[in-house]
Amino acid sequence: MLLDQINQPDDLKKLSVEQLGQLAEESRQFLIKNLSVTGGHLSSNLGVVELTIALHYLFNSPEDKFIFDVGHQSYVHKMYTGRMERFQTLRKYKGMSGFIKRSESEHDVWEAGHSSTSLSAAMGMAAGRDLRGENNRVIAIIGDGALTGGMAFEALNHIGHDKKKLMVILNDNEMSIAPNVGALHNYLGKIRSDKHYVKAKEELEFLLKKIPAVGNTLAKTVDKIRESLKYLLVSGVLFEELGLTYLGPVDGHNIPLLLDTLKQADKVNGPVLVHVITLKGKGYSPAEEDSYAWHGASPYKIESGKMVKSAGPPMYTEVFGSTLIELAEQDPRVVAITPAMPGGSGLMKFAEQFPGRMFDVGIAEQHAATFCAGLACERVKPVFAVYSTFLQRAYDQVVHDICRPNLNVAFAIDRAGFVGPDGETHQGVYDIPFLRSLPNMVLMMPKDENELRHMLKTAVEYNDGPIAVRYPRINGIGVPMDDQLAPIPIGSWEVHREGEGIAVLAVGPMVQVAEEAAELLAKEGLHIRIINARFIKPLDENMLLQLASERTKLITMEEGAVLGGFGSSVLEFYSLHGITDMNVRLLGIGDYFVEHGSVKEQRQEVGLTAERLMTEVRALLPRKRQRA
Amino acid sequence: MLLDQINQPDDLKKLSVEQLGQLAEESRQFLIKNLSVTGGHLSSNLGVVELTIALHYLFNSPEDKFIFDVGHQSYVHKMYTGRMERFQTLRKYKGMSGFIKRSESEHDVWEAGHSSTSLSAAMGMAAGRDLRGENNRVIAIIGDGALTGGMAFEALNHIGHDKKKLMVILNDNEMSIAPNVGALHNYLGKIRSDKHYVKAKEELEFLLKKIPAVGNTLAKTVDKIRESLKYLLVSGVLFEELGLTYLGPVDGHNIPLLLDTLKQADKVNGPVLVHVITLKGKGYSPAEEDSYAWHGASPYKIESGKMVKSAGPPMYTEVFGSTLIELAEQDPRVVAITPAMPGGSGLMKFAEQFPGRMFDVGIAEQHAATFCAGLACERVKPVFAVYSTFLQRAYDQVVHDICRPNLNVAFAIDRAGFVGPDGETHQGVYDIPFLRSLPNMVLMMPKDENELRHMLKTAVEYNDGPIAVRYPRINGIGVPMDDQLAPIPIGSWEVHREGEGIAVLAVGPMVQVAEEAAELLAKEGLHIRIINARFIKPLDENMLLQLASERTKLITMEEGAVLGGFGSSVLEFYSLHGITDMNVRLLGIGDYFVEHGSVKEQRQEVGLTAERLMTEVRALLPRKRQRA
Repeated sequence: MLLDQINQPDDLKKLSVEQLGQLAEESRQFLIKNLSVTGGHLSSNLGVVELTIALHYLFNSPEDKFIFDVGHQSYVHKMYTGRMERFQTLRKYKGMSGFIKRSESEHDVWEAGHSSTSLSAAMGMAAGRDLRGENNRVIAIIGDGALTGGMAFEALNHIGHDKKKLMVILNDNEMSIAPNVGALHNYLGKIRSDKHYVKAKEELEFLLKKIPAVGNTLAKTVDKIRESLKYLLVSGVLFEELGLTYLGPVDGHNIPLLLDTLKQADKVNGPVLVHVITLKGKGYSPAEEDSYAWHGASPYKIESGKMVKSAGPPMYTEVFGSTLIELAEQDPRVVAITPAMPGGSGLMKFAEQFPGRMFDVGIAEQHAATFCAGLACERVKPVFAVYSTFLQRAYDQVVHDICRPNLNVAFAIDRAGFVGPDGETHQGVYDIPFLRSLPNMVLMMPKDENELRHMLKTAVEYNDGPIAVRYPRINGIGVPMDDQLAPIPIGSWEVHREGEGIAVLAVGPMVQVAEEAAELLAKEGLHIRIINARFIKPLDENMLLQLASERTKLITMEEGAVLGGFGSSVLEFYSLHGITDMNVRLLGIGDYFVEHGSVKEQRQEVGLTAERLMTEVRALLPRKRQRA
Repeated sequence: MLLDQINQPDDLKKLSVEQLGQLAEESRQFLIKNLSVTGGHLSSNLGVVELTIALHYLFNSPEDKFIFDVGHQSYVHKMYTGRMERFQTLRKYKGMSGFIKRSESEHDVWEAGHSSTSLSAAMGMAAGRDLRGENNRVIAIIGDGALTGGMAFEALNHIGHDKKKLMVILNDNEMSIAPNVGALHNYLGKIRSDKHYVKAKEELEFLLKKIPAVGNTLAKTVDKIRESLKYLLVSGVLFEELGLTYLGPVDGHNIPLLLDTLKQADKVNGPVLVHVITLKGKGYSPAEEDSYAWHGASPYKIESGKMVKSAGPPMYTEVFGSTLIELAEQDPRVVAITPAMPGGSGLMKFAEQFPGRMFDVGIAEQHAATFCAGLACERVKPVFAVYSTFLQRAYDQVVHDICRPNLNVAFAIDRAGFVGPDGETHQGVYDIPFLRSLPNMVLMMPKDENELRHMLKTAVEYNDGPIAVRYPRINGIGVPMDDQLAPIPIGSWEVHREGEGIAVLAVGPMVQVAEEAAELLAKEGLHIRIINARFIKPLDENMLLQLASERTKLITMEEGAVLGGFGSSVLEFYSLHGITDMNVRLLGIGDYFVEHGSVKEQRQEVGLTAERLMTEVRALLPRKRQRA
């Protein structure tokens, strides 16, 4: 085994070029075996084995900066930088992150989870290097999907202008997570597929060398010809026009070719883009055949390629998908928008049934939001399906293009709350603070999967401005599903469980957690009220006033940042109404980033549990007794 | 006067092409005259007179959708759509907006203020049109500066792929607000300047027509040649590669040529980009000569071109600019980053003195923020100078790339609070809610321009993560300036005025407003305490606990959204510490978008005034007396 000898990148450099192929094979087997137990991002990592080998073989991490965009394709890099033993803890609580992470290794010089940040980071590190007079390499590895994110283009615009030496490796596998879309994708496809380009390139390069670069009056004319011919001989005109030298396309699984091309790129004294063609899932046939399903794999049987399915009630995501189909059947105004997450958002069947009413805009949350605003101007009802964490990318568009002109855009915010193994980069825990402070926004969260259905109905029928329903990345609780959908009165809460003295204002899945606590407390003779605070905004003002008139003590409970969250809005309400004698306790996520683990572990860590609620309730009791 | 006859676009259509030149001239005089009184966006509007005439002459607003990016170049459009009489109220309180605004006219089918949204909106409106089976035109008018914003690229990627019929007019004046930067700008410059391109284009177009489009086996080869030749004959390869038909460049002040080109573009059955070259400030020589200074003009003397300067203490922006130079002289790690606002952010002198330490990245807030993160990884100290409203664009980058990895990025957030005449699109009133809920973030606001200096020192010396100082778009109050700068202890507030019973926790300029109120109240024998809550996050916990132990009644006062704002964080603090008997009143901006006017009028409207504070104080008194 060569792999056993690789503890640090220097060990890899001791191998011959011939041995690297064997290392690649062993690395693949390592990934296939380990991920069969833990699950993880299999297919993207199988695609970059040779590329990662080539980078560590030629260059010197950590002095040279390897910046993996998104970072879920950094497993091979992790293997060669002393973390092989940690793979059994991959994406587990207190275990190794599924992304690059600065605190994990000096070789992780950047960290991410969201896409399209690597070029900006690379430009920053290159500028920093030059300011400090150093000469290390800066190398960003970015997928073709991530390249459609607007900030990647903003970075290219800066990189191509500023001309600092840095290398962009375009890891082109024709996929983001779903099959890629967009004009840029079509463009890359043309380069990839057209052998003519490569052939013509070779012939014309030969010719071009015959044209001397002369320093006289002819020079300008010659330059002009050279410039014109460039269009014929360079495949990546688009990148060249933006000021980067383009090299490629090159087969990303041919190590000698990769090494040659990277060496050539390294000689360019300015920004260079190397176009590398890779195959997602390379070397493991189930993943090669369906790289989409294998993007984020559950544990699986290696031989059969069968993933272990979790049993249980449907995920909220699935309920969203099936309900939206029902709603679209009833209302021709309804269309769905996704930023490159048709599967993750449960929209695959919708896309099949309503291909003309489904818009996958690529990794482009900003555009997606404002595109929805444009649709709403034309009396169409856009439903923007987006993960909470990715909606952060469209914050300004939500403020400026949707809330301000008060347009009828519906938001289906998936992965709200803890997301489990993806961890801190993906937690959906800020959308309550960032949305509830915006005028005109209505924000809901259902207590169960059946209520989600009614909320979607509410959202689609609402015509007074933007409205959002957020729901978690978990299974429903198995409640019966209503056939008939009915809108819920805006701003109305529901008494989920009767009780007195103390009321829990619970948001979404916290209703269920509160219910568990209430059951246990009831056995002790304590009967707390549970209110399903299904509207985070607007609040149920009548109910809040009633609670005040009863002097009920309140505990708010939300799976989101406690600073600026729902609980905070209850405090504000009473303050703004001059009610100063309420006892309101806030349960939510404290002021830090919660790392990867299971949702259960994450809730445990921050105290969003029945046990914690019981403790809080008991803490409120003595005073209550004093009063009574 | 032809202009007098134009009440609606139909009136314009009655003119002959020859008369349009006269209309352009009269329109310019109208603008120059009216804006000399009100001020406003003169130079960009002088640049689009002929273009706006051509659009309204050929096409049919409002059925055809004219979408002006940003919207500050829509004055001429406003003139021809029945709003000439309202120009005397331009950007005044309750007057006509300086941007397009849906509530103002049926001809304003979109509204904006931030750049780069028009292409997404256009794509949405085109998709909506097609879904509804209609056939109106959709036309976006976007500047070359706005095109560098990432969301514009995201939209192009969708537009070029989806192939819906729509027109993009690239209004290329080589400027955003400041002279434009970036690779795209260089690329456009090449097209503009190279006559060779245009000539070659004509010749080759002739040749190309001779190559028949045949349906046999030769077809593919012919297509290949055609495709290759396209690189020689099309100027806008970059746009063509993205799937748009490119037409131009065309002189934007030549009406017959413009009409011809737009007619030709209108025939394209898919997305088309028309590249129009215009001159900012066209027709008014002071503005032609310094289109930058005349972008947002103050009232001026028409003959001399002298703008009326407002007297008074320096603007906070100026104090920022001069202080940053001092800090950069002392600390070589300090660099400045601006997203296309070097002048607006007070950084022109910094750029002169430290050209290598100043990065203008174009309209690209997302990239700017993550670029700062990259710099911070390299132990450089980036100071990201950005308007509060534009920082909204980089929200996810602040969360994911800066706060999460806790990098040492300093934010200089200008235009925090009310911004006056730019109105609702530009109000800097959400940054407190969206920043204070983020872990690791430190957020300050100075009570005066001298404190701003110390806060900048604090920010530059702070090495424990992100730190932001926000400051308003107003003049300072004329306090003496300290020579020596000293960091302020993180999380420490200051008792600005002694008093008892009631304390005002005032943020930034609200300290001065509170001071006014306190002076008046003192004459009545009421002595309120004023606390300069200079750290919005972290709070001064000791002081808050002390106030609680004294049972002091509190009024918080901030020029920001009250929902989720600073006051809310005070409520949270007490709740999280189990202190339930505090009386805290919140003064801030209610839950709606505040329109244009002067800052004074805006504060008056929402009640952020000394009078209002006095009322609140008096309302708290009776209870106080009951207790005493």
